[in-house]
Amino acid sequence: MNFKESMEAKIQTIENILNQYLPKEEGFQKIVMEAMNYSVLAGGKRIRPMLMMETYRLFGGKGKVIEPFMAAMEMIHTYSLVHDDLPAMDNDEYRRGRKTTHIVYGHAMGILAGDALLNYAFETALQAFEIENNDGIPKALMILAKKAGIYGMIGGQVVDVCAVGESLDRERLDFIYKLKTGALIEASMMIGAILAGATEEEVAKVEKAAADIGLAFQIQDDILDVTSTTEILGKPVFSDEKNNKTTYVTFEGLETAKTHVAKISKAAIETIKSFQGENEFLIELVKYLIHREK
Amino acid sequence: MNFKESMEAKIQTIENILNQYLPKEEGFQKIVMEAMNYSVLAGGKRIRPMLMMETYRLFGGKGKVIEPFMAAMEMIHTYSLVHDDLPAMDNDEYRRGRKTTHIVYGHAMGILAGDALLNYAFETALQAFEIENNDGIPKALMILAKKAGIYGMIGGQVVDVCAVGESLDRERLDFIYKLKTGALIEASMMIGAILAGATEEEVAKVEKAAADIGLAFQIQDDILDVTSTTEILGKPVFSDEKNNKTTYVTFEGLETAKTHVAKISKAAIETIKSFQGENEFLIELVKYLIHREK
Repeated sequence: MNFKESMEAKIQTIENILNQYLPKEEGFQKIVMEAMNYSVLAGGKRIRPMLMMETYRLFGGKGKVIEPFMAAMEMIHTYSLVHDDLPAMDNDEYRRGRKTTHIVYGHAMGILAGDALLNYAFETALQAFEIENNDGIPKALMILAKKAGIYGMIGGQVVDVCAVGESLDRERLDFIYKLKTGALIEASMMIGAILAGATEEEVAKVEKAAADIGLAFQIQDDILDVTSTTEILGKPVFSDEKNNKTTYVTFEGLETAKTHVAKISKAAIETIKSFQGENEFLIELVKYLIHREK
Repeated sequence: MNFKESMEAKIQTIENILNQYLPKEEGFQKIVMEAMNYSVLAGGKRIRPMLMMETYRLFGGKGKVIEPFMAAMEMIHTYSLVHDDLPAMDNDEYRRGRKTTHIVYGHAMGILAGDALLNYAFETALQAFEIENNDGIPKALMILAKKAGIYGMIGGQVVDVCAVGESLDRERLDFIYKLKTGALIEASMMIGAILAGATEEEVAKVEKAAADIGLAFQIQDDILDVTSTTEILGKPVFSDEKNNKTTYVTFEGLETAKTHVAKISKAAIETIKSFQGENEFLIELVKYLIHREK
C-alpha cells in the first residue's frame, strides 16, 4: 500500500471505532444524539486519533485501551468546532460543505450538542478502565482534560476570540498557535505514549515533538494562504490579509516561515525516529501534515 | 448549633473547598478564569456538594478525596446555569440578583466559560487520584460523567428545551423532572457513598433515595408556585400558569402533589436512617429541601 491507501485504511479503522463509541439515537432526548452524531460523522481526516493510534503503536501498544481515548479526542475536537460555529462565535453556516450543527438543529441544540459531546468524551474515555488494567489511564485522562481546557485548547480559543479586531502581538499569536490547535495534538500523542507504557522522559519528548508538529501544521496554513491558489486549496487564498488577520507570515515573512516549518518538522521527525519503534507510517503522516499543498 | 447555623457553617466549608479548586486568574486567557469564578462564586446553597459530603460522612468517609468531587459537582451545576441563561436558551439577564455571565462577559465568553467549567470539573475531579488510593474513584468519575450527560442532566435539558411551547405529556414531564435536576442529586449522593466504600447494594438504595429527594424538591417548587406569596417566595407566584407551563400540579392537582411529596420524602428519610451512620444533619437537610416555604 502506498501512503494514500494506508491513510484511507486508517481513517476507516477510526470511523469504525467512532461508530462503536457514539451514542445510540434513542429516547425522548434522541435529537441531541442525532446532533452529536451528525457533527462527529461530518468527515475530516481524523488527524488527532490517528496521531494517537500511531504513537501508541510506536511505543509497542497493542491493546484496545487506546480506542475510547481516540473516540473521546475526536468528540472534543468536534464539540470545539460546533461551538466555534455558533452565531455568538464565528457564525459559520457551512463546514466542509455541510450545514453546521446549529443551522440544522437550531441554536439551543447547537449549544447542547456541543456540551453533550464534551461530556460524552469523558464518559467514553472513562470506559478505558473497563478494558484493561493500565496504570497510565488516570494520567491519560488528566492530560486529555488539561489539554482541552483553559490551560489548553479553550485557553487558546479565549485569546483568539478576544483578539478579533485587535492587532495581535507576537506573544499572543504564539500562545494561540500553541494552545488552540497544538494542545490537542500534544494530548493525542502523549496519551498514545502513556497508554503504551512510555517513560516520563519519553512522554516529555513526545510532547515537544507534538508541539512542533502542531506549530508547523499551522504555519503551513499561513504559508498556503499566500502561496497556493483557490483551485488547489479549495477555499479563498489571501483570506488572512482580507480579514486583517495577523499570522506567523505577517511577523516573519514567507521565507523565514518556510525555513521554520522545515526546521521544526525535521526536529519532530528526528525525535520520532529516536524511539526506534514502528514509525514508518507516523513519519509519513507528519510529513504529509506539514508539507501538504492544501 | 441549630440547623440554620449548621447549614451556614457547612456552606462556608464548601465555599473554602471551592476557592481552593477554582482556577487562578492569570495568563493571556485570564478573562475566562474570571468569568468561571464569577459564575461559581455567585452564591447559592451548594445543595449538591452538601448532599455529597453528608452522604460520604453517612457511610463513614473521613478523607479529603471527596473534596475535588464536591467542587467538580458545583462546577457542572454552574456551567449548566451559565449555558441555560444564554440568549439562545432562556435568555436571562439576572440570576440571584446578579447579572448573568454572558451579560457581564459577552455572549462568546458565556459559551466559553461554560465549556471551561464543564471541562475544569473533570480536571478537578481527576485530582482525586493524587489524594488517596481509593478503588471507588473510577466509578465515581463515571457516575459524575453519566449523570451530567445525555443520560442525565443534559438529556433532561434537551427534552425541556424541545417542550417549550408544546403541551407536555406526563411521561415527558417525569423524564425532565428525573433528569434535569434529579440526575445531579443522584450523582452527588452516589459519589459520596462510593468514595466512602459503600457496597453496590447500598449505592443502589442511595440512588433511589436521591431520586426521591430530587423529585420531591421539584414538586415542592410547583406547589409553592400556587400556594405561596410573592413576598415569601421572593419571585412571582402563579408563574407556571402564566407561562403555560405544565407541572406535576397540573396533572395531579394540589392535594395529590402534597401527598406525594410527603410519601417520597418519608421513603428517602427511611432509607437514610436504615444505614445507621452519622445522619442527623443529612435528615434535617432533606426535610429542609422538601418542606421549605421558599
